[in-house]
This record gives sequence, structure tokens and C-alpha cells, in this order.
Amino acid sequence: MTDMSATNIVFLLFPGVTQLDFTAPAQALSRMPGAVVAGAASSLAPIATDSGFAIVPTHDFASAPQADILCVPGGHGVAEALGDAATIHFIARQAARAAWVTSVCTGAFLLGRAGLLAGKRATTHWAYTHLLPLVGAEHQPGRVVEDGQIVTSGGVTSGLDFALTLIARLKGAAVAQAIQLAIEYDPAPPFAGGHPDRAPDAVTTGLKQRVYDAAAARMEAALRGEGVIVLD
Amino acid sequence: MTDMSATNIVFLLFPGVTQLDFTAPAQALSRMPGAVVAGAASSLAPIATDSGFAIVPTHDFASAPQADILCVPGGHGVAEALGDAATIHFIARQAARAAWVTSVCTGAFLLGRAGLLAGKRATTHWAYTHLLPLVGAEHQPGRVVEDGQIVTSGGVTSGLDFALTLIARLKGAAVAQAIQLAIEYDPAPPFAGGHPDRAPDAVTTGLKQRVYDAAAARMEAALRGEGVIVLD
Repeated sequence: MTDMSATNIVFLLFPGVTQLDFTAPAQALSRMPGAVVAGAASSLAPIATDSGFAIVPTHDFASAPQADILCVPGGHGVAEALGDAATIHFIARQAARAAWVTSVCTGAFLLGRAGLLAGKRATTHWAYTHLLPLVGAEHQPGRVVEDGQIVTSGGVTSGLDFALTLIARLKGAAVAQAIQLAIEYDPAPPFAGGHPDRAPDAVTTGLKQRVYDAAAARMEAALRGEGVIVLD
Repeated sequence: MTDMSATNIVFLLFPGVTQLDFTAPAQALSRMPGAVVAGAASSLAPIATDSGFAIVPTHDFASAPQADILCVPGGHGVAEALGDAATIHFIARQAARAAWVTSVCTGAFLLGRAGLLAGKRATTHWAYTHLLPLVGAEHQPGRVVEDGQIVTSGGVTSGLDFALTLIARLKGAAVAQAIQLAIEYDPAPPFAGGHPDRAPDAVTTGLKQRVYDAAAARMEAALRGEGVIVLD
């Protein structure tokens, strides 16, 4: 990031991405002075998110600019993306020259598959933190975890806290505060239970039974599976 | 909303929409049991958001399903959308049969232009609340404001609080709590100043001078301007 006046921010896009995982940081980072946002995917075909919408990539992997900040979101599509060589190679190639390599939610496992979390402290969505050792990472509790140039964050909505934290570091607190005020980020969640540490046990248990026990098992199978991608 | 097992949630899309304004509520509402999400625009051409991405509408105005929940996001494109008859007619037609008519951020003014806020208590992004009387509404402070079937919310990120509040009302607290936990909405903003009531005065003043004094003047001109759209 030699020219601080322009900052290329590249978001990875893949089918089944969680729309808020990239939208929340994009909403904040795109307002950073000099920000240039790109969304890169394997082709320019629209990408179906998990929320009923489809996003048009701005670049394919070959044409994407080199990221100053690489952002890898998560989502239920991660388990499939872990097996896609083009996606993993793109992450590894971009990360090699990026100033900051970041993830939201289960995007951490894509960083991990690209070899970027070995020996690193990291976090991910609460339902998957026990799987971080499978990519060589040590789970550090926290909504935003920095280890050198690697910044990982917790589930979905944590991308906003990650982005504002990074903006404060890159451009100063005043810029980050102004962006936080511009997007009126003065949260008032209706319940206290946005994390299992604070949610009623019955809510956490029920949600795991309905969704996350199976989802984490799928992720574990993908992480342990055959066909580990050989990086260049 | 006669059949509670299926709920049509229709988001208005228009050029210059704030991506987080619709993504945050879509991320929560799409996980509500029975939710069917649509994104409706004047045509099926991709819509450029304010954040560097483009969204493909699922429907044009003619083909969109009747909403049970109509969601109108805001953004810097609202000032132009206020003058677009097809957009305002779509809102009015949908609202007439929707169970819930909602807005995030400056989307409130689109509801207002469609005649839906006359005599109502409402809110919008903090930089525009003084303009609510121009659409006949009374500003009520609050991140989420309900008045009958109309639910308006504050700037950008407030859409998450609005969506979880509405889910709790429609499907019960347990469902809303589970969705809040699934998206790990346990916010930890790096600064306290997400609203002018809590931000340092210098941050608020600087942001108004750089962005919102002019933006609010543009909105006011659009609201006072010629060519007020005649509803059917």
C-alpha cells in the first residue's frame, strides 16, 4: 500500500456467500478516503447470495486488481468453495502482496485453506471456532482478532466492527468515527443474546440442533477431505 | 398476510441505494420461517448500489409479488427516486395491501412521497429527521418507530434492529433470538459515537459540513420540488 491515497479493497465472492458478511465491511470501507472497491469471482456471472439476492462481480479472478485489503466473507457456500482450486489460488496469490488479509465469519477457513492461518491467532463464527485448529490456527476469543497482517472477525455482523477498527488504524480515529456516525452505527439489538456467552442456553442448543451441528460437520468434512489443494 | 407459513418480503431497489439498508434486514428476515425474498426495481437491469456492487433485481415492478412486508431502503439515490413516478406508484400500490410497510434510513421519504406517512410518527437517518414534516410525518426519536402498520427506522445499520423487532412480533421472541444469535449480532462498535447524541461535536459538525448539509438540502429540494407525483 505504497500510495495511501488509493486503497484497493477486493472482496471475494462465491455462490452461497452471506450477503451481510461482505456488505457490512463494504459499507464502511467504501467510504474511506481513496477506497476503490472490487468484487471478484471465478467469472462475471451473477453470484447468488444466501439472502435472496444476486450480486454482479466487478472482476473475475484473472482481471481483479491487486488488493491492498483482501476481504474474504463466509457463508454456507464456504464448504464448497474450500474445494475450488481457482478460489483458493486466488486468495493465496492476492494475499501474498496485500497489506491486510481479512475475513468475516467462516471466510476464515478459506484463508486457512490457502495456508494463511498457520500458527496464527484467529476467530470465526461462534459455531465453528473449534475447527480453527484444522487450518493450523489457534482460536482467540474476540469479535475482531488481529495477528500481524491477518485480521479475522466473528460471525456475520462482526464485519462492521472489523471494518471500523481497520479504518481507525489506517486513517485515524476521526475518520472511523465519522463513518460510524454516517451509517448511524449506534446499535440497539432487541435481545442481549447475540453470542452463546449471553444467549439463553435453550436458544443456543435449539439453533445448534436445527442448523449448526450439521453445518459444522459439513465444514469439518470439507476441511479434512480429500483433494487438499496444492498451492503454486 | 393470511397464510403465516409463507411471507412475501419485497425490497425496493433503485440506483444509488445504500447496500446495507436492505442487506441488513434481508439477512435477518430471509431466515424467518416461510420467508420469500424479492428485490423489485423498474427493470431487471442490475442496480448499482452506493458501495461498489451491483444487485440483480428478482422482479420488475409489474411482476413483483404482493408484499406481506414491504421494505423501502434509503440512500443518496432517494432524491432522484422521489421524482420517479413508477417507483412511487409501486410503493403506493404495494403498501395498499401489505401487512407491514417499512423503511430504513431515508427510505422514509419514499414512503412519505407515496402518501403513507401523513399524520404518522416516523424516523429516518439523523441528518434528515428535520425534513419529516415535509411528508406530513412527526419525527419520533428512536432507532425503530412503529405507528400502526408503518415501521420506520433510523440510518443504515438500524435496519438490523428493525428486522429483529419485526421478527419477534411476527414469529415470537425465540425465533428472533435464534436469528440474532445465528448472525452473531453482539455488536462491539469501536467508538460510542454512532449517533449525534453521543458523537463528539467536532465529528458531527465536520461530517455535516462535508456531506449532510448538502445532502439534506438536495433532499429538501426534491421534497419541495415541482412535479409532485399524482397517485392513482
